[in-house]
Amino acid sequence: MTRILGIDPGSRHTGIGIIDVDDAGRATHVFNTALVLLGDGDFSVRLKRLLLGLSEVIEQWRPQEVAIERVFLARNPDSALKLGQARGAAISAVVLRDLPVHEYAAKEVKLALVGRGGAEKAQIQHMVGIMLNLHGKLQADAADALAIAITHAHVRATARRLGVSTQQAWSRK
Amino acid sequence: MTRILGIDPGSRHTGIGIIDVDDAGRATHVFNTALVLLGDGDFSVRLKRLLLGLSEVIEQWRPQEVAIERVFLARNPDSALKLGQARGAAISAVVLRDLPVHEYAAKEVKLALVGRGGAEKAQIQHMVGIMLNLHGKLQADAADALAIAITHAHVRATARRLGVSTQQAWSRK
Repeated sequence: MTRILGIDPGSRHTGIGIIDVDDAGRATHVFNTALVLLGDGDFSVRLKRLLLGLSEVIEQWRPQEVAIERVFLARNPDSALKLGQARGAAISAVVLRDLPVHEYAAKEVKLALVGRGGAEKAQIQHMVGIMLNLHGKLQADAADALAIAITHAHVRATARRLGVSTQQAWSRK
Repeated sequence: MTRILGIDPGSRHTGIGIIDVDDAGRATHVFNTALVLLGDGDFSVRLKRLLLGLSEVIEQWRPQEVAIERVFLARNPDSALKLGQARGAAISAVVLRDLPVHEYAAKEVKLALVGRGGAEKAQIQHMVGIMLNLHGKLQADAADALAIAITHAHVRATARRLGVSTQQAWSRK
């Protein structure tokens, strides 16, 4: 059994999702939340909230592997800078614990969950609920984080079947 | 005497400069370096190098206040994302030690060092050498980091003369 942490970083909300996955790639829901970074305080206060909030989650749930969304094209320089800062703080929390970070493009997440690279966001969130047996509405960013964790679980399972290590499977992508 | 750490974060090189400043705003050079983040390894390895490298500098030199360049307009979304990640990791290293972070725009740095908001980069680096009595050529990013630290020293000195706290002077900018 391996515990996987999925992160969907953002400068306003950062989604966090944790699943357990067995050798066959079957996933069980463990925990999900969305850190709210808005509110008073300048951006360094926000980043601190993200860094400490995520560190606390890692401390409590002890994931063994981490998956995060790869960003290809940000909309504009200003939002890219803010998103980058959030990603930098999130990855800082992860590497401080010496955990390996795996990146997946949005397209890979869609393929893993719906089988189509062009699937819609709402469809992804719906599939997360079904795959993890969750009832009730998931917070959108938390659902995205769980989707990224599930994607990593699939890649791990495929790698096992092919007899290569996850790291190899990942670096060969 | 207050010890100020200036940071010029970048995804390839991160400049670090430390000065001591007395109540009148007189600055003395303490340390400068540029962390090289290029080379093998994916971006999370780079961010880890930045986070741990900067943490080590803070541990060794124990600055009391930190100044970092504020970014207004990045050139394009891709470079903005990379710069944002580097800033996020740098600020993570700082807030982990509970140090206050002050931000200065490039224009403020130019005004503080040369008296003109439109001064050239080479002129800034030249002034840093003169103001801190440094002989020999400074690494460009390290010089920028020292320039940001000097800018913060000036703002602090002005705040003292006006009888307000640095934090107030800063938040009133």
